[in-house]
Amino acid sequence: MRMAELSQTTGIPVPTIKYYMREGLLAPGRPTGRNQADYGEEHVRRLRLVRALVEYGDLSIAVIRDLTARIDNPDLEEFDLLGAAQKTVTQRKEARPGPYKDEAEQRLYDLLSARGWRIRTGDPAYRTAVGVLATLDEVGRHDMLEALDAYADGAERIAEADVRLLGGDVSDRERAVEIVVIGTSVGDTLIACLRRLAQSTVAERIYARGPSAGEREPGLPGARRP
Amino acid sequence: MRMAELSQTTGIPVPTIKYYMREGLLAPGRPTGRNQADYGEEHVRRLRLVRALVEYGDLSIAVIRDLTARIDNPDLEEFDLLGAAQKTVTQRKEARPGPYKDEAEQRLYDLLSARGWRIRTGDPAYRTAVGVLATLDEVGRHDMLEALDAYADGAERIAEADVRLLGGDVSDRERAVEIVVIGTSVGDTLIACLRRLAQSTVAERIYARGPSAGEREPGLPGARRP
Repeated sequence: MRMAELSQTTGIPVPTIKYYMREGLLAPGRPTGRNQADYGEEHVRRLRLVRALVEYGDLSIAVIRDLTARIDNPDLEEFDLLGAAQKTVTQRKEARPGPYKDEAEQRLYDLLSARGWRIRTGDPAYRTAVGVLATLDEVGRHDMLEALDAYADGAERIAEADVRLLGGDVSDRERAVEIVVIGTSVGDTLIACLRRLAQSTVAERIYARGPSAGEREPGLPGARRP
Repeated sequence: MRMAELSQTTGIPVPTIKYYMREGLLAPGRPTGRNQADYGEEHVRRLRLVRALVEYGDLSIAVIRDLTARIDNPDLEEFDLLGAAQKTVTQRKEARPGPYKDEAEQRLYDLLSARGWRIRTGDPAYRTAVGVLATLDEVGRHDMLEALDAYADGAERIAEADVRLLGGDVSDRERAVEIVVIGTSVGDTLIACLRRLAQSTVAERIYARGPSAGEREPGLPGARRP
């Protein structure tokens, strides 16, 4: 297909497509004449992936270039490709050095060991988790530290769904990266929402009291577990 | 205690304390002379709460003023106070109108009904969840929609831990608001980290392959489930 059709199919403006090409995110088309080239389905897929990474991964062009280069590198194994994809959507926030941090390092290590989880202390998610635990300790929210194991339980259930969703076959590397990046970034928001929605239900069970009149939705029945 | 001691006890600079007082987040002290006042434990607690809300809730002064006013309003029931606290840490992102949104509304309603969760369609978490589901549909990630129930399972486990943590006794309203706001905002980050850490463990089980040499931590044994 021509550039105009590529733009129409993907809904991405021609100047943006050209920009992605200059930045190395998209391979050039097959030249068919002076100033003309032919594009195939692989260009459509790559463009959709790039847009998904820009929109949902909130990733910089440099990071996307690195990721697409990994997709195109046949020597890179799938597992490492997915690990790289996951790291791009993981914020890394280091704890301030000190006793709270040391304690938090030990606490997280013990938690993951007891659960048989893979331990890579340099992983951004691991570093950030240490920072969160140190913070909770510092502000005196020790009660939340006691809920850690239950949180890990919930997280493991969600992760199992994530991995099942990805499926055993990750030979379609473009799809796999898309699932990891969209699934992780958009999924975090979804999980945060579900957590809040579940909280009010669980809290209502405990406090055994209905919503106040102002909050009640007129058109919708308040569904309850029988 | 005097202002200087209040500042020392909380670690909050005097000008910041005075600012909070002018903004109505903190009650004035008991006057003990010209330009002097006496502060009590309730001032220490309130200051710690305000700092927690500023640092972890990322909340504006106006929102914090609203929250502290609710804490101080004895006519407001605990359940409503906690609902208000939770809303302040919930992002609201509305879906674009259209068929994806309509479909997403129905999907979320069905999911929550089937689970017996409380349904309040105007809740910010509900609105945002509709937006996320519409987005996933629009970008063609229908597979993630199928994982919804598993996500809700995980979220419910986490929410149960949240509510147990809060405890049945919420008569200490300051503590309850602090737990809800810190627990929700910091907790989201913690859960996102645990999800990623669990993902690599679960993925490793499936792909049945150890970490590559470059990722292995030298000093720490790779703990595995036996």
